[in-house]
Amino acid sequence: MAGMTIGLVLDLFGTFFFAMSGCILAARRKFDIIGSLFLGTLAGLGGGIIRDLILGTVPSAFNNPLYFVPPVLAALLVFFLFHSVQRFQRPLLIFDAGGLALFCITGTVKALSLGMNPVASALLGLTTAVGGGVLRDVVANRVPQLFNPDDLYAVPAMLGSALVVVLWSAGIYGTAAAMCVAAVVFGLRVVSLHYGWHIPHAAPARYTDRND
Amino acid sequence: MAGMTIGLVLDLFGTFFFAMSGCILAARRKFDIIGSLFLGTLAGLGGGIIRDLILGTVPSAFNNPLYFVPPVLAALLVFFLFHSVQRFQRPLLIFDAGGLALFCITGTVKALSLGMNPVASALLGLTTAVGGGVLRDVVANRVPQLFNPDDLYAVPAMLGSALVVVLWSAGIYGTAAAMCVAAVVFGLRVVSLHYGWHIPHAAPARYTDRND
Amino acid sequence: MAGMTIGLVLDLFGTFFFAMSGCILAARRKFDIIGSLFLGTLAGLGGGIIRDLILGTVPSAFNNPLYFVPPVLAALLVFFLFHSVQRFQRPLLIFDAGGLALFCITGTVKALSLGMNPVASALLGLTTAVGGGVLRDVVANRVPQLFNPDDLYAVPAMLGSALVVVLWSAGIYGTAAAMCVAAVVFGLRVVSLHYGWHIPHAAPARYTDRND
Repeated sequence: MAGMTIGLVLDLFGTFFFAMSGCILAARRKFDIIGSLFLGTLAGLGGGIIRDLILGTVPSAFNNPLYFVPPVLAALLVFFLFHSVQRFQRPLLIFDAGGLALFCITGTVKALSLGMNPVASALLGLTTAVGGGVLRDVVANRVPQLFNPDDLYAVPAMLGSALVVVLWSAGIYGTAAAMCVAAVVFGLRVVSLHYGWHIPHAAPARYTDRND
Repeated sequence: MAGMTIGLVLDLFGTFFFAMSGCILAARRKFDIIGSLFLGTLAGLGGGIIRDLILGTVPSAFNNPLYFVPPVLAALLVFFLFHSVQRFQRPLLIFDAGGLALFCITGTVKALSLGMNPVASALLGLTTAVGGGVLRDVVANRVPQLFNPDDLYAVPAMLGSALVVVLWSAGIYGTAAAMCVAAVVFGLRVVSLHYGWHIPHAAPARYTDRND
Repeated sequence: MAGMTIGLVLDLFGTFFFAMSGCILAARRKFDIIGSLFLGTLAGLGGGIIRDLILGTVPSAFNNPLYFVPPVLAALLVFFLFHSVQRFQRPLLIFDAGGLALFCITGTVKALSLGMNPVASALLGLTTAVGGGVLRDVVANRVPQLFNPDDLYAVPAMLGSALVVVLWSAGIYGTAAAMCVAAVVFGLRVVSLHYGWHIPHAAPARYTDRND
């Protein structure tokens, strides 16, 4: 029960962080306040909905109306405080990193607790973590952040999902462990943004000019 | 049974209206006739398929082949009568408005009759109403109509879904009520297009210049 | 059991072909190696996941980790051998055609064997065949190959799905039949690319200038 509650709290915070990233993008694109609410909702709930559809369960958000509170809050915050939010360095990316850190944990745990195998669980955690951001960017008609080769995006989430599988299998997953994993994922993502850490391209650059 | 039949009729008309919007967009983009059929099918059936996946039922369209008649009809009509269709003012938007008006009703009713709570039902009605149009615009690589800040798109559908929940809870939902709700939603959407009614932006415009 | 094994083999090859198309596109877009793995995975597994969600079963890929081998292989091959891959004429389109040919078969067979009606089965086969490519192109922010009016894309897959339904109903579906259907679909797609075969536009070209 306590684990359930902690999972819900992490999920709601993750939803809020991704929703903020969606509402900030909506503000940049000059969408209206309802467009902001939609883009925030899609970013905040999209990853979990994809996960739950694959797991064959009714998506959490449609079982528990609490999940719609963070997007409403995010849309209002961006509406009233966009000026302040903008003072932070790259707010969209920071909120997105927060959502990524929490969702790779809650997504993996949900899959494991429904009896999926470890590989599928880690992949579903990863899907939860990157899904909302991909949907946000696709409907806003831009190439998803996930595919930006100038920093690390999926790598921290992959690491986080794998860590959760290991901790769960070792029987030492709990609130403290979750906090540590979240800190590692968030830290790695933000540090990679700051220092421009990146991994090799899909293919050596000199060969990528032909079109078809 | 009569309610079932009326629901099916409304659903097929809604499918037809959205399919027309998809086929007209395909014609504008110079897709071929099969591309038109696909975009019409996606626009017409996409919203209902997302709703049914979330509800955990086999999508209506895959249980009842009748659902594929409207997209075929729309592709043929656009192929043979595009010149006439174009005479109407802004035909894509008008057909889209017709689909929006019917799907916010049928989507909400389906969710309610499968026992979802009122909030989730209204949200699923809204998802049905806007889903097909968002999929249509996303695969045609443009920012969805839903996010156009120059008129009202989601607001009429939200109002319609909420009205259906109220009428259903009050026990007075029926054909006449459905027709009234559809007229209100369609009317509000079209009037907002005509007069350029809109709601505030996601954030005050002067703060939306920074990029990241 | 043998049929099951053949289905799995065809599915894995189809996954590999689509994954190659995704990884090649990732290389063209200068995504990094993990972005390549994601785009390959989405292209390779996306169509089957959509099909399985509609069928209401846990997606094959999440039941059997083998499905993730082809995308990993494709990302590595593109990374190490992109120069050689590029020597072939239009490699992205050829791999995509291979996936199309196999997935319209395996998708239709899976739907038929789960008891869907013939129309729905052919449509799910088609969805499996075109779904991964559409997701690949949508997240890479380009108009899907499916909508390119300069050659035939959906038509070969529709023919293939219909042929499988006919062969299955006649009780003569088997490995040999599957190979023949795959050859027909692949051949028709490649020949249409080579000769620029196409079908009529969604509407006569002279009427497609107005915007809204």
